[in-house]
Amino acid sequence: MEAYLDNSATTRCSERAIAVMVRLLSEDYGNPSSLHGMGANAEAYLKEAKKKIAKTLKAAEKEIIFTSGGTESNNLAVFGSVKANRRAGNHIITTAIEHASIAQPMQQLEEMGFRVTYLPVDSFGTVRLDALKEALDEDTILVSMMHVNNEIGTIEPLEAVSALIRQKAPQALFHVDAIQSYGKLPVIPKKLDIDLLSASGHKIHGPKGIGFLYIRDKTKIKPILYGGGQQKGMRSGTENVPAIAALGEAAAECSQSLAANAEAMYGLREYFIEEVVKIPGVTINGKTGKESAPHIISVSAEDVRSEVLLHSLEEKGIYVSAGSACSSNKPSVSQTLTAIGLRKELLDATVRFSFCRDTTKEEVEYALAALAEIIPFRRKFTRK
Amino acid sequence: MEAYLDNSATTRCSERAIAVMVRLLSEDYGNPSSLHGMGANAEAYLKEAKKKIAKTLKAAEKEIIFTSGGTESNNLAVFGSVKANRRAGNHIITTAIEHASIAQPMQQLEEMGFRVTYLPVDSFGTVRLDALKEALDEDTILVSMMHVNNEIGTIEPLEAVSALIRQKAPQALFHVDAIQSYGKLPVIPKKLDIDLLSASGHKIHGPKGIGFLYIRDKTKIKPILYGGGQQKGMRSGTENVPAIAALGEAAAECSQSLAANAEAMYGLREYFIEEVVKIPGVTINGKTGKESAPHIISVSAEDVRSEVLLHSLEEKGIYVSAGSACSSNKPSVSQTLTAIGLRKELLDATVRFSFCRDTTKEEVEYALAALAEIIPFRRKFTRK
Repeated sequence: MEAYLDNSATTRCSERAIAVMVRLLSEDYGNPSSLHGMGANAEAYLKEAKKKIAKTLKAAEKEIIFTSGGTESNNLAVFGSVKANRRAGNHIITTAIEHASIAQPMQQLEEMGFRVTYLPVDSFGTVRLDALKEALDEDTILVSMMHVNNEIGTIEPLEAVSALIRQKAPQALFHVDAIQSYGKLPVIPKKLDIDLLSASGHKIHGPKGIGFLYIRDKTKIKPILYGGGQQKGMRSGTENVPAIAALGEAAAECSQSLAANAEAMYGLREYFIEEVVKIPGVTINGKTGKESAPHIISVSAEDVRSEVLLHSLEEKGIYVSAGSACSSNKPSVSQTLTAIGLRKELLDATVRFSFCRDTTKEEVEYALAALAEIIPFRRKFTRK
Repeated sequence: MEAYLDNSATTRCSERAIAVMVRLLSEDYGNPSSLHGMGANAEAYLKEAKKKIAKTLKAAEKEIIFTSGGTESNNLAVFGSVKANRRAGNHIITTAIEHASIAQPMQQLEEMGFRVTYLPVDSFGTVRLDALKEALDEDTILVSMMHVNNEIGTIEPLEAVSALIRQKAPQALFHVDAIQSYGKLPVIPKKLDIDLLSASGHKIHGPKGIGFLYIRDKTKIKPILYGGGQQKGMRSGTENVPAIAALGEAAAECSQSLAANAEAMYGLREYFIEEVVKIPGVTINGKTGKESAPHIISVSAEDVRSEVLLHSLEEKGIYVSAGSACSSNKPSVSQTLTAIGLRKELLDATVRFSFCRDTTKEEVEYALAALAEIIPFRRKFTRK
């Protein structure tokens, strides 16, 4: 048996997404910038995909810009808004548990002379609103925060965050990294009062190499890539029409059965958590129930090194991540696990299980049985 | 009959490239950063693609960085080298006929305070070496130039250019935009003494949304996208493995039959030129023979507006570009045609035919017959 439980790293592309992609690579392969019919066809596919995605966000088509993926979306949001608004202030707020594609741009901004506040989180990974309130001032031009943490699944209180921003720093833009939530939870930027929102194709059964940035109408940011002026100048370069159309398809598919899929994954998650903590020395990081995303479970197993556990599971055909795995294949100490105050000896004894809509009860049971066998067995070797 | 003669805008993706892409989207869909076997598999596909591409360039694997396409490659080359070397000087040299993905970043650099020299070209689009010689000085940190012009096909004298650079400004990096030459002509960076070289997937029967930048070993540039540190930190973001593998396949295919394909296209090109200039008032821009790329022909037809000709051809199933078409679908005055000193009344009376290895004699004859019919017919309406 095999169980791919690393869906927060990447997902299998859906059949419908692949089908449209193949059609656009082999038949309707025009360049949307070409003035002839094949160009117009490609343009129509673009427009259709934009429409589908806008619908999932209850947003306007013109508010969607396609990028090469989550990393570019996050970089565009951060650098683009800072470039456009640097005269308005010099202060940026983010959290201590962001993905590297936010944390690294922030480090660049610090080197460029910006003041960056990294908000602390509580032991569940929830951002400290009191710290946000204190940090916001008239110099703040951007607040960037993830919706769902990629390592432990915690859902951040975005409505409370945006309310505080509008109250204390109305000049600031609010960017949300929704890469782990989009397609799994409802994400309605207007309702959450968000200006910029990033999403990625390959986390939602779309292809790799494609993502989007929602830019609220009238929000001013500057591009980071320059060229032919495609996408109203916001993202130059021949549009990746096959991947864009596939992303549209994948987004529509996720949206259609979002609530049902979330329910099913929540069910599996609760079951998994209930059972896994019965193994001695095993604990869960983050929240249970609806305060967490339905698909991510962070499991710490005392005295069993993450990599050892990961490879032992792999021998049984079970694929998981050590920490987040999104960032290069050299494992380093997790910022998130450190920020929630996880005991030092568990930092390197934690693995992430991540589900998708196709994950079955059988796979979950298989993983649980494997854990129950591996963890005590491995401890024999590590406990001296 | 149909004749897609807009291959410099984009090409049909090859069957082999599509096949590997589908496999990596649906089966071997791991994230190369994942530590388990599916990650390792994805990593192996990456390595294999890199090897194939490096071989076509007679370069080392570590000299290849994958990007989201030609525009990103060009932006990374320009901004990345300037960021890394701004202390060494403030002067950049490019030409008056670059693609927008070079010309626009140059404009940004000017706004940032850099001094940019735009070298003139002769009436065939060949860069003026005397002007280059004069422009190079101890303040020059980058020279960026295309290999093959995307509108008229002229091959630039890269060896002479690099020799001048090494002689007069040894501190400067030499970047070549090879997007229209790679896969069609031999491109050996070491032989041409090039430091940075851009290429794009969808111009060589690979997928859209993927490209690479060759970075000569020990050449220092800085990244423009920050995040998980993939590709040795030079280009963060989950690698687009399906598209990368497909690009490797497409590059290998092009390389295998490069000389034969070029010969065949040169033959068609010469035939097309010979015949098309027999139509009264029709002229060719750029060079004939081996001083031009084999696949691009710029045709000016007196008193027939580009768009009119383009749409008349389209009615017959013949797809071409007005000017370069690479840059947005609003046609503007071509920088290249202006720079070669084309008579003003022909600037808006020029279309580009671009071939690929699959272009047939029949298609070329069909296009010639259409031109012979359309041009005199359209003139009746425009000549008053």
